[in-house]
Amino acid sequence: MKQIFLKNLSNHLDKEIELHGWVNTVRDHKKIVFLDLRDSTGTVQVVADAEASSLSPEDVVMIKGLVKKRPEKLINAKTPNGSIEVEANQITLVSKAHTLPFDMGKEELGLTLPVLLDNRTLTLRHHSVQKIFMVQEAIAEGFRKVSKELGCTEIFVPTIAASSTEGGAEVFEIKYYEHKASLIQSPQLYKQMLIPTFERVFTISHAYRAEPSVTTRHLAETIQMDCEFGFVNFEELLDLLEKVCVGMIQHAETTHRDIVEEFTKRLVLYGKIPRLTLTEAQEVIRKEFGRVVKDLKDMSPEDEQDICKWAREKKSSDFVIITHYPTAKRAFYTKPDPKDPQFSLSYDVLFRGLEICSGSERINDYQELVDVIKKRGMNPDDFELYLMAFKYGMPTEGGFSYGLERVTKQLLDLGNVRESSLFPRDMERVDVRLSRPKKLSS
Amino acid sequence: MKQIFLKNLSNHLDKEIELHGWVNTVRDHKKIVFLDLRDSTGTVQVVADAEASSLSPEDVVMIKGLVKKRPEKLINAKTPNGSIEVEANQITLVSKAHTLPFDMGKEELGLTLPVLLDNRTLTLRHHSVQKIFMVQEAIAEGFRKVSKELGCTEIFVPTIAASSTEGGAEVFEIKYYEHKASLIQSPQLYKQMLIPTFERVFTISHAYRAEPSVTTRHLAETIQMDCEFGFVNFEELLDLLEKVCVGMIQHAETTHRDIVEEFTKRLVLYGKIPRLTLTEAQEVIRKEFGRVVKDLKDMSPEDEQDICKWAREKKSSDFVIITHYPTAKRAFYTKPDPKDPQFSLSYDVLFRGLEICSGSERINDYQELVDVIKKRGMNPDDFELYLMAFKYGMPTEGGFSYGLERVTKQLLDLGNVRESSLFPRDMERVDVRLSRPKKLSS
Repeated sequence: MKQIFLKNLSNHLDKEIELHGWVNTVRDHKKIVFLDLRDSTGTVQVVADAEASSLSPEDVVMIKGLVKKRPEKLINAKTPNGSIEVEANQITLVSKAHTLPFDMGKEELGLTLPVLLDNRTLTLRHHSVQKIFMVQEAIAEGFRKVSKELGCTEIFVPTIAASSTEGGAEVFEIKYYEHKASLIQSPQLYKQMLIPTFERVFTISHAYRAEPSVTTRHLAETIQMDCEFGFVNFEELLDLLEKVCVGMIQHAETTHRDIVEEFTKRLVLYGKIPRLTLTEAQEVIRKEFGRVVKDLKDMSPEDEQDICKWAREKKSSDFVIITHYPTAKRAFYTKPDPKDPQFSLSYDVLFRGLEICSGSERINDYQELVDVIKKRGMNPDDFELYLMAFKYGMPTEGGFSYGLERVTKQLLDLGNVRESSLFPRDMERVDVRLSRPKKLSS
Repeated sequence: MKQIFLKNLSNHLDKEIELHGWVNTVRDHKKIVFLDLRDSTGTVQVVADAEASSLSPEDVVMIKGLVKKRPEKLINAKTPNGSIEVEANQITLVSKAHTLPFDMGKEELGLTLPVLLDNRTLTLRHHSVQKIFMVQEAIAEGFRKVSKELGCTEIFVPTIAASSTEGGAEVFEIKYYEHKASLIQSPQLYKQMLIPTFERVFTISHAYRAEPSVTTRHLAETIQMDCEFGFVNFEELLDLLEKVCVGMIQHAETTHRDIVEEFTKRLVLYGKIPRLTLTEAQEVIRKEFGRVVKDLKDMSPEDEQDICKWAREKKSSDFVIITHYPTAKRAFYTKPDPKDPQFSLSYDVLFRGLEICSGSERINDYQELVDVIKKRGMNPDDFELYLMAFKYGMPTEGGFSYGLERVTKQLLDLGNVRESSLFPRDMERVDVRLSRPKKLSS
């Protein structure tokens, strides 16, 4: 693999080299033709003879040529390879592209979201889209790095479950041989079951919610980054939650600072993260924004926006931790606060106005779990293996789950979570729009 | 998090410490009681007073005590903490375990596979089971490490697809809102679609096959470790395949050498890996084993065993690469060999008698892909986004997919692939046996 990548091209000045890539733009000056060649790492200007005018955008080519310094007055200091160009000796066409449905050679794509997604495998090539997923990779990498530093073992959990394991109706059903099964709503139950094996675990897993609505925040299939810790109390969980949050996002920001700055003018504020109970947060909103909170049992999108504005301006933090949501509003395994069981030892992390993480200390007593499952109208038989983990000794434990797409969206100030999923799934789309009449291919 | 783990206990000699863990065994000597305490990292002997006799296996406890050197004659050199013990001052019961259905305190569990799986969240605690998944974690870590070294970007692909995307009947169907969808048979199509974005990608993804049979090698849901490379030829793909294979397995073997040696007396042989076409492999089997190969179009389990035996004995390699399977036997996107299109530019890696990896160079020409999809009786409309990636310029490319559970099974010489899946799914089981009558819980 001796392929030269364009980001390293300036190391080959005055050398004969061979390049591979896609034609980004063609500028035909009759006797000479200027191509912008693109690979996954950058672009470079190629000077070619008239024959090259037959090339068109997205053609895949192999180019032999000489790397040269540009004349002083033609240097473009703004682009990475702006001081060099390639004088082509030989251009081989590897794959001819059809005529594009829109211009891919511009700095900004400027497409509406439906067009962006209807042409996903084309638009993903544009550097403005590609960069989102370079940052996404770094977020996941940062998550793994911090989780391992905290002593977590990586586990691989299944996505097919025997029944709706967290209650609620928003579950995708599968025909599983002669039986019914469903897709997991989260890796939650499985990571808990591994506490007696590894004490501290992490997993990057799929989660599925048959959300019946279309918002800018919801996807039917998401990537969740989960941790779970044994032998911890509530305060320790909040400390761990913060360590993962800050470590993960800092890793992505420092490794891709140029991209983060390009997407958003503001860098992340890492001031001491405020920790408020839901009730305290509602009080802050009343005081600071003079607004009466309507739903006392949860944070509305407007509440999340306001409390984050307050944290940013008053506490120099882009994050807020909200704790103690009403027990009845959280999943059955959430531990009620012994001091006031109406509220639970639960928490969310908000990042610039959006919830990116949810979690809690869990009920670790077998009988208490059996009772709460029954009380919520579910059948303990559906939780046999899960309950077994508690029946035979489970320490105090808890954990949390970060949504990869949401973290990406918030870090890069994207308008819609669909932009931060390579192939987003919602009630209207699985790759292509589900409602669209199919057309015949050539 | 100041928790002391048992593997580090000897650093705390003659210190008062606090330990957390599970009671592994209780030996009641009336006036004093010996406990074996277990955490996720090891065990230690605890000397406690008569009160401790009320404890039973799998109780979760918190122990305050003094770490002491054992008298010379009581040192057990065979176990990690065999030269120390803890004199307990205070034992707090965190969680009382019910009576166990079988003895968990033995060195070997000695259970049949159905019992092992029916009690999965209990048996996963036993160190002989736990160790399998410590090695599994290292295999995945090794895969990521080598993939990154080879310049691959990590991608997160969906598992819900609009239709059966690779043909064949073994697909799980989902009720997706008002539509039908299905679970991906592999991340294949998505990783290919990302070649024009990143050129080299990797992903650890779920794959689903509604296998209608029960064997020791098949699961309904597996974890696949996939790479895909652009601008490569067939020989380069075989080199990349080997680098990932050897790098990944060596990483797991060197980081967990003690476990690998405990599970299997033989270490992996890394001699130069033989590369044989299917036809050549069949010839070797005829010559070396005097056996007539029945199915000329594929390798039978017996063929795989024999060719691996030959490679081990004659080539000092635990791996064999078999290439050029019949084109008709491989997925539609597999590139036929231009020299003889009846055979394809495909390959499998066999490891100690079992296929652990499959892959190929791919068709990169749009029209050729459309034609082969039609020829196989599928509808190009079902591949709209996939085909779009080829319509607008795709380089020569190819890749491969390693099965995490199979690699784990072979590295540790396990008898059944179900042992190397935390929560195996097959036609008879999703956590619990699907056919079993449900019983009422207390």
